[in-house]
Amino acid sequence: MYQVRTDLALEAREKFEEDNVEIKGVKLETENVPGDICITRVVIETENGAKAMGKPRGTYVTLEAPNMIEEDDDYHREISVQLAKVIRQLLPEQREEASVLVVGLGNREVTPDALGPNVVDNIMITRHIIKEFGKYALGNENMRKISGIVPGVMAQTGMESEEIIKGVVEETKPDCVIVVDALAARSTKRLNRTIQITDTGINPGSGVGNHRHAINKESMGIPVIAIGIPTVVDAATIVTDTMSDLITAMAESSRLKGLGGSLETLDEMEKYELIRELLSPHLNAFFVTPKDIDEAMKRLSYTISEGLNMTFSGKQA
Amino acid sequence: MYQVRTDLALEAREKFEEDNVEIKGVKLETENVPGDICITRVVIETENGAKAMGKPRGTYVTLEAPNMIEEDDDYHREISVQLAKVIRQLLPEQREEASVLVVGLGNREVTPDALGPNVVDNIMITRHIIKEFGKYALGNENMRKISGIVPGVMAQTGMESEEIIKGVVEETKPDCVIVVDALAARSTKRLNRTIQITDTGINPGSGVGNHRHAINKESMGIPVIAIGIPTVVDAATIVTDTMSDLITAMAESSRLKGLGGSLETLDEMEKYELIRELLSPHLNAFFVTPKDIDEAMKRLSYTISEGLNMTFSGKQA
Amino acid sequence: MYQVRTDLALEAREKFEEDNVEIKGVKLETENVPGDICITRVVIETENGAKAMGKPRGTYVTLEAPNMIEEDDDYHREISVQLAKVIRQLLPEQREEASVLVVGLGNREVTPDALGPNVVDNIMITRHIIKEFGKYALGNENMRKISGIVPGVMAQTGMESEEIIKGVVEETKPDCVIVVDALAARSTKRLNRTIQITDTGINPGSGVGNHRHAINKESMGIPVIAIGIPTVVDAATIVTDTMSDLITAMAESSRLKGLGGSLETLDEMEKYELIRELLSPHLNAFFVTPKDIDEAMKRLSYTISEGLNMTFSGKQA
Amino acid sequence: MYQVRTDLALEAREKFEEDNVEIKGVKLETENVPGDICITRVVIETENGAKAMGKPRGTYVTLEAPNMIEEDDDYHREISVQLAKVIRQLLPEQREEASVLVVGLGNREVTPDALGPNVVDNIMITRHIIKEFGKYALGNENMRKISGIVPGVMAQTGMESEEIIKGVVEETKPDCVIVVDALAARSTKRLNRTIQITDTGINPGSGVGNHRHAINKESMGIPVIAIGIPTVVDAATIVTDTMSDLITAMAESSRLKGLGGSLETLDEMEKYELIRELLSPHLNAFFVTPKDIDEAMKRLSYTISEGLNMTFSGKQA
Repeated sequence: MYQVRTDLALEAREKFEEDNVEIKGVKLETENVPGDICITRVVIETENGAKAMGKPRGTYVTLEAPNMIEEDDDYHREISVQLAKVIRQLLPEQREEASVLVVGLGNREVTPDALGPNVVDNIMITRHIIKEFGKYALGNENMRKISGIVPGVMAQTGMESEEIIKGVVEETKPDCVIVVDALAARSTKRLNRTIQITDTGINPGSGVGNHRHAINKESMGIPVIAIGIPTVVDAATIVTDTMSDLITAMAESSRLKGLGGSLETLDEMEKYELIRELLSPHLNAFFVTPKDIDEAMKRLSYTISEGLNMTFSGKQA
Repeated sequence: MYQVRTDLALEAREKFEEDNVEIKGVKLETENVPGDICITRVVIETENGAKAMGKPRGTYVTLEAPNMIEEDDDYHREISVQLAKVIRQLLPEQREEASVLVVGLGNREVTPDALGPNVVDNIMITRHIIKEFGKYALGNENMRKISGIVPGVMAQTGMESEEIIKGVVEETKPDCVIVVDALAARSTKRLNRTIQITDTGINPGSGVGNHRHAINKESMGIPVIAIGIPTVVDAATIVTDTMSDLITAMAESSRLKGLGGSLETLDEMEKYELIRELLSPHLNAFFVTPKDIDEAMKRLSYTISEGLNMTFSGKQA
Repeated sequence: MYQVRTDLALEAREKFEEDNVEIKGVKLETENVPGDICITRVVIETENGAKAMGKPRGTYVTLEAPNMIEEDDDYHREISVQLAKVIRQLLPEQREEASVLVVGLGNREVTPDALGPNVVDNIMITRHIIKEFGKYALGNENMRKISGIVPGVMAQTGMESEEIIKGVVEETKPDCVIVVDALAARSTKRLNRTIQITDTGINPGSGVGNHRHAINKESMGIPVIAIGIPTVVDAATIVTDTMSDLITAMAESSRLKGLGGSLETLDEMEKYELIRELLSPHLNAFFVTPKDIDEAMKRLSYTISEGLNMTFSGKQA
Repeated sequence: MYQVRTDLALEAREKFEEDNVEIKGVKLETENVPGDICITRVVIETENGAKAMGKPRGTYVTLEAPNMIEEDDDYHREISVQLAKVIRQLLPEQREEASVLVVGLGNREVTPDALGPNVVDNIMITRHIIKEFGKYALGNENMRKISGIVPGVMAQTGMESEEIIKGVVEETKPDCVIVVDALAARSTKRLNRTIQITDTGINPGSGVGNHRHAINKESMGIPVIAIGIPTVVDAATIVTDTMSDLITAMAESSRLKGLGGSLETLDEMEKYELIRELLSPHLNAFFVTPKDIDEAMKRLSYTISEGLNMTFSGKQA
């Protein structure tokens, strides 16, 4: 119930490292690229790995850039270029005139959940132009046919995002879907500093929590790439995590040792029992986000939309 | 090309009266209800009538209220009550647990075109609640299953609104669609003072002009009711109309008779030729709207959403 | 640094009750009115009381309504009526043609901080009409001269809200200022369920944290009434509070007694030391808010603006 | 009453050329710069010139770029660079640590009137940072102290924009004000293709029409530079102009000569009389704007804010 929740495969994997547990079926590669950007590639190869990680099999690439929240146009351009590279690697082989539907998940009216809608607002939409005037109409024959939609959240539509997207996919037949969504991290330190790109789509429990049905290759019938940035931490997660640190510190600290009694005898399970008793259950309905989330959203949505525009136009390869 | 354009069946019919032409196959009834509201019912009964009117066969009801733009909550409530009555008459027979998809057409970013999106923002969305918790969950067992969507315009999505709606209809299977859209009138005098409700849906050329494919019973496979308020006049229409008045005045006025020469000999066709020569063709890309359109939109979208909420909840019958 | 922060005088007072401390110079009255609304009046009468409470001398009235977040128009109307009554009691004696400047503090772009801007959007603005056409122009000679402004936050303007408001007050000379702002509570349980009205204005540290200079009778030279609803809890506060509960529980619980060692010997000061060591300092830059904050903001801002419109028009007394 | 209205000095001057009238006291220089940008400098030197032009004495610089509405980032950058050059020439001599208040006039809720607010949204605001941390805090010691405000329109505030700005200027004491506003042109052909920069500020009748008091050096006590883009044509202007063309055509055209009778005997005055009789007076409350005004606003506001950011940071000179 109050389990530590993260949408980042990277954080899910770190959890195991903390606990000194080995996981089979999960590969990890890290690379540093210019611009102080760290690219991590987590590949979940087996069903066992998927079970352990709590995430479906597939590839999860993370771009981490400590200065991602700075107001520096040139720096953001570098991130967009790296992002475009990663997306191209995950995109299915590109036949000519391939078409892509970009979906902006989330709630435009809740600032940290507006990432998806804001990104779609800045995507170069071309499907209707190419369809009517042909592929030379845009002066760039490499330009893909791009369509976009912001389905809204269930409280606004009464429908699952998955239902709306599936209907649109069946009617307009794109070759591929790219879903952009705000994510939840485990730690505030990753908020607004990390982009995750995965070929597994969006799966139950992702995002700020308003869309519950999977949006992936299985449900859509075509490849689904998901791009996300963690913008919130669940309130239950942040409290649980800090309380867990407190119990550990009380058990370990020499100064607190006398006070903490035999706390060190508590195992993980008992620690969570203890926390659960105290944690107000309605905390589940709350999230934690930075006070300057409006400025972060403005910059980050632009960084992603530029990365997508580069990908689709074949520029800046 | 620069023909006088109106989305209002009422105005299309008036045109014939002006020209003293009789139209067969078109019935007209007028009724005054409390609150200084005039209800007009235009029924196009035959294909000939449809051709003459330039609108498909069906029923077009107009609510006209001169004070519709006033800031008076009680008065707006009266209009909402009348609107709910009209919608109920046009809705298909209501079996229990009927479900309705409300579509807000138009562009949220262009003030006079934002009527549809603004209305959907204030609709009580219930489909997901009734689906999960049953029809007693809302404390009103007459409440219908309501879903809503704001598809966006083609420049934003690359898709026809019709494609998006059709996909959503096929996936979520509502019993009926209600489409809300901003309309174009022929005269500025009707702007923001008239609501048209029709069982013919939305047909090419309606609205401010960004969605061209029909959204009606034929294309959707279920009944489609369209609700609209004229919020703009095409720039070409307003200029054409005033110029036409000028030529007529010059031909008729005793003072201008000498000046106007044999203008009275011009027939309608020649008048339009004359105007077309002078009218800048790019005027087609412009619209005319009131300076206080933001306040009108706020009030009118609320009036329609209240009317719809009354309809769906079975209250205020 | 990580002290428990609340903008609610009610919560500041409760803290003393918890700790069984008496406070002199602070009076408390509670009244229940129809609609399950609880009205509490905290009056800080002395400088000692002010120091103990951490809030300036003056009157703080709280309306608490457990169903304030429900979607029920009639119920919200009742709250608006009670709110209007309270505001009238705090407003300075009303000479004829008194004028009021309503200020919407906070950041329109951050959902839980947009309360003030949203309220001002729905206030009936009359100053310019009465100034130009006289007091009979609006058909209600009791209508006050109302002006409104949304100054924005410092990151958007580079100026303190106080500077902007002071400039506007000196130039337009209203008789009184009403400031509306989102507040921070200590507990998530009060969020979106409580309205605080005070004649002490806004004082450093209030709101989500972006305006630091006092906006009160002293700085403005005219009476300043502040109306607020808690919409966020500081992240540091929620974590501190839950950790404090954990330590207390470990010290008291019979099951945990063995584990907790001599935790009961820790006094408040030591408890906070312990927490401070573990609490990440950057947590100060984060807030906690409900996931459905968009819907709450829509309803609550309407409830306050209706209360103000009733107050100013002399209706619904 | 229905006089042809334009906020562009360039158009005011062209009117005289059409009528073959000479104007003393008005100088005109034109220059073409790379990027197909035409820079025109109109200097009104005398009171007589001011009377003839209907605009105060001062310098009016116009940047015209036919492709200004295209979606081309690099091209917009070129315009921003030229704009920065022009602003620097008009700015008062720059002493160190000069401070500038940027004002976004207009109505955020009416798309073509939102230019000013949108520009201020993207200005780098620095005053509060430099004031608190000194001029090296931003890593650019040439950076000016920039503050910004969006005062709103009279229907929203009950106050003249001039009152609000004057109050803020007196309280925060900037060295100079830059006002950004949407303008009205005489012809649709100039909409969204022209930037006017003037050292005369904003004077009665400018903009879409909601702020009537002058915002200039005289009222503010410090230099005021105004930057504007025409985004609307008054509905009365567009109709008057086309009707005037019609009368002229009927008088001149050989084919129409017989029809037009002695129309050529009408002088300008009589032509306007004729038009005024036919023109609906309420047309004054309407404006004409392009259907894709949302996209134009997005691009143009970015072009201006980039030009201002370059100016203030001393970059890209």
